[in-house]
Amino acid sequence: MTAPDYKFEGWLASDASAANGTMQWKEFEPKKWEETDIDIKITHCGICGSDLHTLRSGWGPTNYPCCVGHEIVGIAVRVGSQAEGNIKVGDRVGVGAQGESCLGRKGHCNECASGNERFCARHWAGTYDGIFMNGDKSYGGYALYNRSHSHFVVKIPDALPSAHAAPMLCGGTTTYTPLKENGCGPGKSVGVIGVGGLGHFAILFAKALGADQVVAISRKGNKRNDALALGASSYIATDEDENWSQEHGRSLDLIICTVSSSKMPLAQYVSLLKVHGTLIQLGNPDDGFLTVPAGSLIIQNAKLGGSMIGSPGDIREMLQLAADKGLKPWVKERPMKDANQAIMDMEDGKARYRYVLVNEW
Amino acid sequence: MTAPDYKFEGWLASDASAANGTMQWKEFEPKKWEETDIDIKITHCGICGSDLHTLRSGWGPTNYPCCVGHEIVGIAVRVGSQAEGNIKVGDRVGVGAQGESCLGRKGHCNECASGNERFCARHWAGTYDGIFMNGDKSYGGYALYNRSHSHFVVKIPDALPSAHAAPMLCGGTTTYTPLKENGCGPGKSVGVIGVGGLGHFAILFAKALGADQVVAISRKGNKRNDALALGASSYIATDEDENWSQEHGRSLDLIICTVSSSKMPLAQYVSLLKVHGTLIQLGNPDDGFLTVPAGSLIIQNAKLGGSMIGSPGDIREMLQLAADKGLKPWVKERPMKDANQAIMDMEDGKARYRYVLVNEW
Repeated sequence: MTAPDYKFEGWLASDASAANGTMQWKEFEPKKWEETDIDIKITHCGICGSDLHTLRSGWGPTNYPCCVGHEIVGIAVRVGSQAEGNIKVGDRVGVGAQGESCLGRKGHCNECASGNERFCARHWAGTYDGIFMNGDKSYGGYALYNRSHSHFVVKIPDALPSAHAAPMLCGGTTTYTPLKENGCGPGKSVGVIGVGGLGHFAILFAKALGADQVVAISRKGNKRNDALALGASSYIATDEDENWSQEHGRSLDLIICTVSSSKMPLAQYVSLLKVHGTLIQLGNPDDGFLTVPAGSLIIQNAKLGGSMIGSPGDIREMLQLAADKGLKPWVKERPMKDANQAIMDMEDGKARYRYVLVNEW
Repeated sequence: MTAPDYKFEGWLASDASAANGTMQWKEFEPKKWEETDIDIKITHCGICGSDLHTLRSGWGPTNYPCCVGHEIVGIAVRVGSQAEGNIKVGDRVGVGAQGESCLGRKGHCNECASGNERFCARHWAGTYDGIFMNGDKSYGGYALYNRSHSHFVVKIPDALPSAHAAPMLCGGTTTYTPLKENGCGPGKSVGVIGVGGLGHFAILFAKALGADQVVAISRKGNKRNDALALGASSYIATDEDENWSQEHGRSLDLIICTVSSSKMPLAQYVSLLKVHGTLIQLGNPDDGFLTVPAGSLIIQNAKLGGSMIGSPGDIREMLQLAADKGLKPWVKERPMKDANQAIMDMEDGKARYRYVLVNEW
């Protein structure tokens, strides 16, 4: 196949001020083409909290110039001769937060080789701000085109609109996977702490997976109606409901915590767990360590865990569930040209609950 | 049945100085007899770390006078007409750390009613320093006789010497239960942090459950030979082995942590876990909360949990496993009359690895 006639252009951040809306539209050099790759003509890209962290070097120094965005949906326009996944040119596809792993290619990584690629942090490259195995940089989806390893490219079910599928590719699977892995389903009571981008997905998926009770937990009462409309069965406002932790003590089998502050009342959250319950922390605070009451974990036989994104297999399963159940995330489409404004609005907490950038082709 | 002709006498602590060896031999009033109870003529009682915490009011104020000891083995001498468990007068029996729970009797406790009695912290009474449902105090096993609810009394398999069975009733099950619940078995690599009373049991049971690798972890190298003799396959001395956390990083499926200090290097311990691994904390520090790097839990998809003792069912299963495998804990028998000296030796860390008080009848 001859080299493509399209150019890779997108919103590039050149320093940490980019989070304030100074990204510039420029051409960039994608990774060198390999026959396991797929090029995607981007139609949609969700705005994820990770984009903001990375733009401002919040999780460590970002390797600028950087094009963020890892909730990419579009059309496959070039498919390598050794690509996985039976994807054809013209298919509607997506790629999430993981751009590449070694997949055991170096022969020394049991995690990758065993197909456990989600969990191999040794040889993992993010969809953006990462370094591929061949040494090239990875660039994300605030752009016209994306090049990714086919292993991480998934087909989008026909029933699912692209604007709905896009934010599921990171935000969705980040909540779906720990819900599934920790037994969310009929007979279970599930708590969701934080009603934001991730929390809204956690409510939707907990409901879709069949949990008996989905309890939304937030500081203020102002998201109560939204949470109930999303499918929550009840709502706790921790700043307003007195004695909330006693009143709801030992009532939840599983809690998904999307809040990321070392100051959050973790001991009280843990007290909401039934004996043998699990709290999964998704937010990674950049203001310190979590403080854990060992005694509560011991007496309740409880667990505190973490979870990061989901594997391509998880994503396929989640998209199919969303299609089957007619699950509808709350997204607002924003033109790609307005990306700078959109990330500032996201930073200001205006998203209800996810923005999706749309290219006009 | 007429009232018994024996008296309840034992070592009573009258204040927090008891931990320094001032317990006094006295008569005490056991709980009022109920037809679900069993009286045990005590032959053996293990000395558990909890005894020391309780004697010195280390976990909160102790309700003195108090007779500690919850690793009790002896002969059933009186069995209530409504006793559970098919126990006959003359049987060799034991009772562990849990003296009573409501067992759903009050009709408002799903945990107890579901038979999940180990985990019902609502209506739980310890074998000593507890309050029974009828309002009476519970007294432990540094004594001649013990009266316990039959639900928590187990038969001791014939193959198991009493001095070996006694310390299993708390120390043993405290390690056996989380090992079993978290998948210890063939194909698994298990770490044990701390080679003391609990740690020595964790090594024995991890091995008995069939773990491929059992890695003992301690600060100094001075327990290496003991750990290997107990069945550990390797040993890490964290104060002496350089780069231990990098060298052994991501090597363990499960870690049982028997150390209880908020100063311990928990982040480094977590780094020893494989992706998807679990660390179970058994020791409850009384010097502060544990601090956890959320990022490590998230990236490794790891869990940090707690666990407390085991149910009567767990204890029966564990005793049978110990009998079948010929498992031999390292215990030293001490005369009951020397209890004051024995607890001081225990406090000084001299036990290798468990003391058992023995009554001379």
